[in-house]
Amino acid sequence: MLGEYRLEVAFSPALFGGCDLDNAIVVVIDVLRATSAICTALESGVKKVLPVSTIEEALEYQKKGYLVGAERDGEQIPGFDFGNSPYSYKNDELKGKTVVLTTTNGTKAINMAKEADMVVVGAFTNISALSTWLEEQDKNVVFLCSGWKGRFNLEDSLFAGAVIDRLSNNYKYAELSDSALASKYLFHTADADPYKFLRNSSHRKRMHKLNLKKDVKYCLTLDQTKIIPVLKGNELVRLEEYYESITS
Amino acid sequence: MLGEYRLEVAFSPALFGGCDLDNAIVVVIDVLRATSAICTALESGVKKVLPVSTIEEALEYQKKGYLVGAERDGEQIPGFDFGNSPYSYKNDELKGKTVVLTTTNGTKAINMAKEADMVVVGAFTNISALSTWLEEQDKNVVFLCSGWKGRFNLEDSLFAGAVIDRLSNNYKYAELSDSALASKYLFHTADADPYKFLRNSSHRKRMHKLNLKKDVKYCLTLDQTKIIPVLKGNELVRLEEYYESITS
Repeated sequence: MLGEYRLEVAFSPALFGGCDLDNAIVVVIDVLRATSAICTALESGVKKVLPVSTIEEALEYQKKGYLVGAERDGEQIPGFDFGNSPYSYKNDELKGKTVVLTTTNGTKAINMAKEADMVVVGAFTNISALSTWLEEQDKNVVFLCSGWKGRFNLEDSLFAGAVIDRLSNNYKYAELSDSALASKYLFHTADADPYKFLRNSSHRKRMHKLNLKKDVKYCLTLDQTKIIPVLKGNELVRLEEYYESITS
Repeated sequence: MLGEYRLEVAFSPALFGGCDLDNAIVVVIDVLRATSAICTALESGVKKVLPVSTIEEALEYQKKGYLVGAERDGEQIPGFDFGNSPYSYKNDELKGKTVVLTTTNGTKAINMAKEADMVVVGAFTNISALSTWLEEQDKNVVFLCSGWKGRFNLEDSLFAGAVIDRLSNNYKYAELSDSALASKYLFHTADADPYKFLRNSSHRKRMHKLNLKKDVKYCLTLDQTKIIPVLKGNELVRLEEYYESITS
């Protein structure tokens, strides 16, 4: 129906409680790097990504024989199989496997969103596929930015604005919250060059110190995959698999 | 000292807990309309504004004979002396008086900031005086946007960006958080016309319905006063009075 749907952004998990989840799809965003890595993993043939919030949970899964990625403060935790670099999930040996993942911000945000009707994962790497699919749904959209330890971050808000910029050309989204408007304005400021725009952002500086420039470039490169990861119970799977499971 | 100080914005009280208050001045912002009204009240000769968070506290003060302003959801609560329209505080009869005030968002934010070394009140109506004074201090600055019921709002963030735009020309502020950068970009988008910029904002729509267009214009008009309200214990007083009290 025309003019019926809302777009809203939680700039940090701390603001998610104030969002209206009625008839809403939640898009969880952690551009640098959890949601980018999850897209890459499913694109590379990983069957499921199981996001867990704590290192303790990750250890439990490791004991049971799962492959586990674990990152805190930008670095891989020693003893685990991966961190959250997307490149570590570009690996043919992972085809058909389940990967458990815990990260500083992103996996906590995904778990926080579970109460919503539908939770998907967004990144610059899947932005066109995601935006097109969102427009096809008759749903409100709430963007949940993972931020950095409860604080606002620039890259996740910018991504929300990039998607909102695309969606808001569609008259079905009549209601843009103040947060949606601000994200869209922020995206316009970036002038189609997220890499340049984010040069002063705190997390880019943090990752620069950790020699992760290659990861940053990857995560800010648009449309590397058509995969849309979606939460099915506790696991992120490809959208096609989600649809198969609910229609079968 | 050059290059030493931080600028940071809490886009909502829900994000204030993540801010670093070390050696910081907190600027509380509720452009529409609490902090604008407080500036007007002190400019008009009110001696003190006592911000309280709940209607119950406001009633207690009323019973004791205080003048009390009380607003919820944009409207004056019946039975109290004022709402939070700045115009209601432009009144010679208030000279030398104490006014107790409770509002939907602003007075709660002021009380939340109390733990900081110093808490001041900002509005477009005192922006130049405030910015000049902030620059003269050797302090970090944390901007606390009152928002709307725990959510992000456009006008408070825009004001933070307007002040940050002025301060960030000064090399003493070397560290702009992501939230400070985003506010500044937002202000640049507004292109020096807050009134036009805010035409789609949720609270302007809300106030338009309540026939408060005159109030909105007033609150978005720059530099109507040189007053900087500052928290002294539980009361907001003029900066001069605050200095007198700590040096005497």
